[in-house]
Parts: sequence; C-alpha cells; structure tokens
Amino acid sequence: MTTILFAAKSERWTAYEGPLRAALADAGLGHARLTTEADPAEVDYIVYAPNSSLSDFTPYTRLKAVLNLWAGVEDVVGNQTLTVPLARMVDDGLTEGMVEWVTGHVLRHHLGMDTHIQGQDGTWRGDSPPPLARDRSVVVLGLGVLGTACAEMLARLNFRTLGWSRSAKTVPGVACHHGAQGLCDALSEAQIVVLLLPNTPATENTLNTETLGLLPRGAVILNPGRGALIDDDALLAALASGQVGHATLDTFRVEPLPKGHPYWTHQKVTVTPHIASATRTESASRTIVENIRRGEAGEPFRHLVDRTLGY
Amino acid sequence: MTTILFAAKSERWTAYEGPLRAALADAGLGHARLTTEADPAEVDYIVYAPNSSLSDFTPYTRLKAVLNLWAGVEDVVGNQTLTVPLARMVDDGLTEGMVEWVTGHVLRHHLGMDTHIQGQDGTWRGDSPPPLARDRSVVVLGLGVLGTACAEMLARLNFRTLGWSRSAKTVPGVACHHGAQGLCDALSEAQIVVLLLPNTPATENTLNTETLGLLPRGAVILNPGRGALIDDDALLAALASGQVGHATLDTFRVEPLPKGHPYWTHQKVTVTPHIASATRTESASRTIVENIRRGEAGEPFRHLVDRTLGY
Repeated sequence: MTTILFAAKSERWTAYEGPLRAALADAGLGHARLTTEADPAEVDYIVYAPNSSLSDFTPYTRLKAVLNLWAGVEDVVGNQTLTVPLARMVDDGLTEGMVEWVTGHVLRHHLGMDTHIQGQDGTWRGDSPPPLARDRSVVVLGLGVLGTACAEMLARLNFRTLGWSRSAKTVPGVACHHGAQGLCDALSEAQIVVLLLPNTPATENTLNTETLGLLPRGAVILNPGRGALIDDDALLAALASGQVGHATLDTFRVEPLPKGHPYWTHQKVTVTPHIASATRTESASRTIVENIRRGEAGEPFRHLVDRTLGY
Repeated sequence: MTTILFAAKSERWTAYEGPLRAALADAGLGHARLTTEADPAEVDYIVYAPNSSLSDFTPYTRLKAVLNLWAGVEDVVGNQTLTVPLARMVDDGLTEGMVEWVTGHVLRHHLGMDTHIQGQDGTWRGDSPPPLARDRSVVVLGLGVLGTACAEMLARLNFRTLGWSRSAKTVPGVACHHGAQGLCDALSEAQIVVLLLPNTPATENTLNTETLGLLPRGAVILNPGRGALIDDDALLAALASGQVGHATLDTFRVEPLPKGHPYWTHQKVTVTPHIASATRTESASRTIVENIRRGEAGEPFRHLVDRTLGY
C-alpha cells in the first residue's frame, strides 16, 4: 500500500487533510494511506513543512520523494539526510495570489493611492493626474514561475517592465537583464523594484547600501519574496535619506514581525503579513497529488529542486 | 487655409498648443491655422471644451466638425445650434489611465489594502490571506471603449468579471448582461461595481435605493464614470446601513467636490480628484488631428456622437 506521511504542524493537518484526500480520490489514489504517523520503513512519500519536527530522513528507507508544502526550500535543501528527490511547491493559487498582490501594490504606488486613502481632508488634489504606466519603469528581480508571471502581467498593463535573473532568460514584453552588471543596469532605471528571488546564500542582501544607491531617488521597494533579500539597516537608512521613497514588505527575517521593529511605525513602510505568497490548500493539494501520481506511474516528478543551486 | 479654432479655457490652450501643433506637423497639416480667435465664417474645425464660453454655433457657417476635448458630451449634445458632426474624445492615454485606475482600485479593495496601509500598529494580521480573484466577482456597468478595456483587464487578472450595457454586447471572458432585467441579475452577483456608463437622462441615478439594495451586502462601489450615475443620498444611506461596504469616487455632480460634502469625512468613502479619466495632451492631440486629417481628406470622422442616443 502507498503510504503518505504528512509532516507539518497540526493546524496544517486540519487545513490539508480534506483537500488532500479529495485530490487523491480525484487522481484515482483514494486507496493510498494518508497519515500523520507511520513506521518510517513503510513511508513512500512525505508531504513536508520545513518547520515540522521531522529533520532526520535516514530511517525512511523506502522513501520516493519529499513534497515540500512551501515554495521556499532554504530550510530543507541543506539537509544531508535527505537524498531522495525534493519537489518545491508550485501552486497555481500561489502564483495567482502573488500576481494579484504585486500588481495591486505596483498600481497603488504608481497611482499615488495612499495620498487619497489617507487624505480625506477636503483638499481636492486635482492638479496633475498620475503618469501613465508606459512612463513608469518597474523591475522584477527573479524570473522564476512567480517573477515571470508578475512581469508578464505588469507588461500587459503597459508598465516599462524590466526583469533580472542570475542566468539569462527571455520573457515576452520584458527587458531581461542578468548577471552582476545586469543587476546594476536594471536597478539604475527602476522606479519600482519587486523582489521575487529565491533565498540562497547568493541572494542574501541583494538590496544593500550599494545596490539601493543605484536606484533613481525616491524609488519604491516591494518585497513579497523573502526577508533575507534585504539588508534591513541599509533599507532604513535609504528611507531616512529619501533615496527610497517607500517600502511595502510582505516577508521578514523573523515572522511575525516583532512588535518593536522599526518597520511597524515607519511612515514610509507598509507591512503586510506574509499574504502575497499564501498557498491555497485546494490547489496546493492538487500539485502534491499530481507528483504522487507521477511517482506511482513511474513518470518524472515536477518542480524538483536542484541541490547544487539551492532552489 | 484650414482654420482650427481652439475653444476652451486659457489654461487648456497653454497645455494643448504645443502638442496640437506637433501633431498637426506630424500629420502633414503644419500649414493649418490653429488659433483661439477667428472670424466665425472662416472656421473649419472647433476643438471644443464644453465649459468654454462658446455656446452658439450658428455663426460658424463653414464648420465641418466639432472635436470634443472631453470624453463626456452631455453638456454639448443637446445644443440645438450644433448641427455638424460632433466627435467625442477617445484618447489611448485616457483608456490606459482608466484601466490603471480601475484595476488598481479593484485590487486595492480585493486585497484589503487599506487595513494594512492604515494599520501599522504592530498587529500581525496574518490569519487568512485574501481570496483569489477567481473567487471575487466584479461588474463593469457600461461596455463602451473604457468599460470594455477595464473588463478585459479584470478578466485577465482572473476576476469573475461581469459586464452590463443597455444593448447586448460581447466581450471575451466577460459575462455580459443587458437591459433592465440584466442589470438586476448582474448587480445581485457583484462584490465590486465599476461605473463607466455615459451620462444620459437614461443613466442618471443608475445606482439608487432600489438597485443598491440588489447588491450582496458589503459590496464596494467604484465610480470613475460620472457623478450623476449615483443617487448620493441613497449611497450615503447604503453606506450607513452596511449594505455598501466602501465607495471610491472619482467623479461628482459638482467638482471640485465642495469642502463640506459628507463624502469628504466619511470613513467608508475615498475621494479621488477626477484623475481616472484625465486626458493626456499628447495622445489627445493626436486623436483630434487624426479627425482633422480625415475631414480634409474626405474620409469619415471617427468617434462620432449619436445625437439620438446622447453619446
């Protein structure tokens, strides 16, 4: 019998048990055993949250794959006891939610919405309409599944859309840059920066004192990616000097963001509580079950992590 | 010589003279006379703002067309002295700006942004991510050039997009309704309502006590169209009862919105200062000059107003 171990905090089990069982039944795998406790020697697949108590994969001698519940794999990819294929979460719902969050907040800053939302004071600020999107440049750092989807939507809205990735990529309608010099070129044009890089040692502090200094003065930062992509002290200094005009941050090095953190009370910062990349249980369950179906049918797994790159 | 009279307030002349002369030169009409004062008997075309001092067209005996500077024609369409073709402004820049404003404010309400923008109080509101756009229904009332462009973009963002127009229309990806019963059907499903109807006697107070009552409780109203489309007293009552959750209004019966108006201080209202449909002088000038070029070449004018329909 195919045994699937669900290794995540108990509230995740409450949320996922129903959708996973429904997705298994839809895939003709209704007979599989889905459980939160099993003899390690009997487990075929582990549905895995990196903050679960499971960290030693050695006893799982018949394991075929680990299916990560999260898009981010930085807390598991270095685990030396994990030698079977590791798939990261690529969830249609996650991509859609990310596109909605990124497009919404880019438009919010583009249109200068906050002035109106917070300015219900009887002053008709009608002198100059905002520029058109075609006169506003936005760069998306990171052109994986999420970054590419966001860049494509921004380009459809006519933004002057730039993209940057480690290695060369092509996205229709997007001016793609890559490599170290490409990052400098892209940042120097970017009125709005969207961070959607994976979290690896190479991407830590991608935005630091030096790179923030390349931006046009008053640029806006959106970080729905990972907290560690930004040197927080450098960002606070750039906000104080006016080099950065606003930062809307959805991810942080410590979450929930601690009460006393300077971001909470900063006039030029908006905190959103890690909602941009929320995984939706129904579509995530379908993604996981599709990989189990592939494993049982002897087909290649999808969305496998490259251990040498770290994502 | 072709004579073009510019009839609008003097600050409009300051903004438009350069772009119009540039567009004329580009169209091979650099020899035309563009002026703010001319003998009426010599005028071939009038570039017209309905709030200009010109209201009697009788003396303009050789007039070929009136080219409206505004998208709205309600203040000129009933003028009995105007018997030549009347073209309304259809400006690419205006359409783009409208799509950006509508998409941005739909996403703002969809994502619940205001809670975060105004809630920088140390509270991590991370319990539930917003629903996906595919689970949010938006109706666009009015499927002219602007409404169609907005509905198409909302559909691309996966919103459950409905449309309504007086007569039957088809927009790919949009559930189109029409007629009186169609309005009731569309409103009864709409969590977000976008008003982009023309301003005619038939559309005045489209949103009134009865139609507001059809909406799902807590629906959001966006009005980038015309102030007269809403019965203001009915909207204020619906906001007070909770039937309407929020209204973001860009157009008003009187503009600028008077200082003492209850909309200014209402917790559930956002006023934006008629910026959604701002015409951009460069693209608007190209639209106007294209019609002059057509008139001189004996080609049919574009974007003509149907006097019997009023738009």
